[in-house]
Amino acid sequence: MSYTEDNRSRYVEELKEFLRIPSISTLSENKADIRRAAEFTAAQLRQAGMGNVELIEGEGNPLVYGEWVQAPGKPTLLFYGHYDVQPPDPLNEWISPPFEPEIRGENIYARGAADDKGLTLILVKAVEALMATRGVLPVNVKFLIEGEEESGGEHISRYVASKPSRLQADAAVICDTEMFAPELPTLCIGLRGIVYGELIVKGAKQDLHSGVYGGAAPNPIMAAAEILTALKDRDGRIRIPGFYDRVRPPAPQELEAWSRLPFDEEKYRSEEMGSSALTGEPEFTLFERLWARPTLEVHGIRGGFTGEGAKTVIPAQALVKLSARLVADQRPEEAVEQIQKAVAAACPLGVTAEFRPFHCGGPSLINPDNPFIRAAADAMTEVFGKPTVYVRSGGSIPITALFDRHLGIPSVMMGFGLPDDNLHAPNEKLYLPNFYRGIDAVSLYLDIVAQG
Amino acid sequence: MSYTEDNRSRYVEELKEFLRIPSISTLSENKADIRRAAEFTAAQLRQAGMGNVELIEGEGNPLVYGEWVQAPGKPTLLFYGHYDVQPPDPLNEWISPPFEPEIRGENIYARGAADDKGLTLILVKAVEALMATRGVLPVNVKFLIEGEEESGGEHISRYVASKPSRLQADAAVICDTEMFAPELPTLCIGLRGIVYGELIVKGAKQDLHSGVYGGAAPNPIMAAAEILTALKDRDGRIRIPGFYDRVRPPAPQELEAWSRLPFDEEKYRSEEMGSSALTGEPEFTLFERLWARPTLEVHGIRGGFTGEGAKTVIPAQALVKLSARLVADQRPEEAVEQIQKAVAAACPLGVTAEFRPFHCGGPSLINPDNPFIRAAADAMTEVFGKPTVYVRSGGSIPITALFDRHLGIPSVMMGFGLPDDNLHAPNEKLYLPNFYRGIDAVSLYLDIVAQG
Repeated sequence: MSYTEDNRSRYVEELKEFLRIPSISTLSENKADIRRAAEFTAAQLRQAGMGNVELIEGEGNPLVYGEWVQAPGKPTLLFYGHYDVQPPDPLNEWISPPFEPEIRGENIYARGAADDKGLTLILVKAVEALMATRGVLPVNVKFLIEGEEESGGEHISRYVASKPSRLQADAAVICDTEMFAPELPTLCIGLRGIVYGELIVKGAKQDLHSGVYGGAAPNPIMAAAEILTALKDRDGRIRIPGFYDRVRPPAPQELEAWSRLPFDEEKYRSEEMGSSALTGEPEFTLFERLWARPTLEVHGIRGGFTGEGAKTVIPAQALVKLSARLVADQRPEEAVEQIQKAVAAACPLGVTAEFRPFHCGGPSLINPDNPFIRAAADAMTEVFGKPTVYVRSGGSIPITALFDRHLGIPSVMMGFGLPDDNLHAPNEKLYLPNFYRGIDAVSLYLDIVAQG
Repeated sequence: MSYTEDNRSRYVEELKEFLRIPSISTLSENKADIRRAAEFTAAQLRQAGMGNVELIEGEGNPLVYGEWVQAPGKPTLLFYGHYDVQPPDPLNEWISPPFEPEIRGENIYARGAADDKGLTLILVKAVEALMATRGVLPVNVKFLIEGEEESGGEHISRYVASKPSRLQADAAVICDTEMFAPELPTLCIGLRGIVYGELIVKGAKQDLHSGVYGGAAPNPIMAAAEILTALKDRDGRIRIPGFYDRVRPPAPQELEAWSRLPFDEEKYRSEEMGSSALTGEPEFTLFERLWARPTLEVHGIRGGFTGEGAKTVIPAQALVKLSARLVADQRPEEAVEQIQKAVAAACPLGVTAEFRPFHCGGPSLINPDNPFIRAAADAMTEVFGKPTVYVRSGGSIPITALFDRHLGIPSVMMGFGLPDDNLHAPNEKLYLPNFYRGIDAVSLYLDIVAQG
């Protein structure tokens, strides 16, 4: 594909322009940036030759839509990505500023480089290259790019549920996952779902002096600690009644395939994670814990005085950000109820505790024998020169469950990120050779799909 | 004492001036305010007729010293107070700004009104009134006012240890406690000690994506919850090995006197604390839990993402502000060691946890038969027109243990604050009638002490 080779530096410049927009969807102060990123995405789709390009307005951030549907009798693919990003904090740990993309070696560093602006552009540029060289596409393509993936995706959820005919397709293609290892083409066929919310613990009507009242006053931070340890034990076992009831164990052949993946657990622990130990349920292998077991994690906690020095208060309130990752066949609504019941049961004397969910998404598990999955494996095998492996991901892309439920289509997750891309963390990056190969692999995928 | 009556409005104006200085000793940004408050205090001592007034410089905030020692053969009293205050946050809960004193009804509202600027001025104004009306004092008086009471009191600790001859006295008078109930003259004869520090829990080298790593990554917030619940159980029992070994139970007659104190536990719970329940070790009475039992309290916790919305990180670190209140005969240094050992023993896999003490102070317990205590009770009984009761306080005034250890003198704690003064909390106040009666009671105390 000499066209894509010739255009690499332009692709990178356009990616940089995209990355400079701080389109953080979890912060209301970035509303204008969200719109700029949506408009940038729409312009990219027009430049790629897509028709009917529009910002779909509604409650929440705009969706960006575009299509090329002039291949009658050929399959239709629904391309999904997202233009919003995670907040960049802690800011002081970035080597270069999060919204000033910088290339160091073969990587481009910026918030959103891998999650998901870089990977979204792979889909756009693959289509652009085919249109530029042939004037047509081998299959029909619809793009639906959202701006709330990092903040719950309410808008796209409602849209997919309400407009199944406009979005009708044979398969979705999602470019928001990673390769299992550098140079190893990877298809992700399973994702965890998520329930994310806040646990709010309240004690006395106001902060109290710990000398005067200590011994009689409820302490919401201690209460939060009691509740958290009641929800999950030291070994990582979730103690919420019924939580594991619907968990579907992986098939023996899938477990066996995982055991053959090239993986250095010691390097993963020490270099990638930088942890003194791998934790979690000791009776399960690492990949089971990451891909096939639900989790309960605390993302943040705040309460009382945490400034410089000492202040002897018993705080009136504590706030905990909490999520559960869910696996097939757990149901988000049921998980919320189970968490709420367990919180109520664990709530100590003198405080109130409430878990308020922000957003939910179901888990997803795709049959690897699906022809759209196999075509993707063939395209990646060809471009990367190695057999494609099948894995799952511990992350959540709730849209896959919605595509399944409302459109009845499987999601093909062609991932071109790498395990050390620092998603959601400082110094997020994208490995540029994968950016280029991704574009070629998606182009080839359209041809393979067209051949049926 | 018509002189003190005539001067009340001036006293209040000078108190207001004192309260306008945001002399927060726990924040380095208030260094200049600390100095202004020290200089204000020194000027007050000069105005009261004290000699040898000086700011004692050293590592930390200046001590303010002044003396009148021209009553040979008469006892010497060492007057203690502090000019520093707690931070005012949460700011939005103050009805009037914390450093703009406002009188509403019979109370003056400001940070430091009761703790301890108002009560410190009681000592100064009592002396000033005697000097203004008689030109002499009936006893010898030395003032030692510090500016680090809320942040560990390192400077005064070193000074008391190093200059026992200059500070030589027969008793210390500390005006930093409260009355048991409005109109009920109260002497505090016991204080809890304190060990205050930070618990720092560290996991992976950086924040991690909770989808990708959840199930294998250590979570420092969960680890902090595990450690905290290992240190203290749901019922408020401290589980640190050996922690209760040196605790001296109150004598039966002291327990009996406490049971006769006028006290509405239900009102205390619902109105003063505003809590749905009183908590703490169920096998002890409320006053035992507050005055004669040690505590372990969390003052603040911080970790991960706590901004608006959702961020799916597993944080790399959590920080907990933690203190233990100690009772006779516990030893602060031993308590620090016990806490550190218990933290190490409770530390889960994959994290490091360290308790770093900021400051310590021993508990104190004074014999109520001491003549300086009895003279104080007589003075308060006279001014308030009711028999003085003896109580303890759950708070900590570490200086009392130092006066005992280095000067060999008891501390007379004449308290004029009220239980609802909101110490360390928003809307701190001082009940002005107690400000005036305090001045009269301390003046009278000097005469009673002089009569032996």
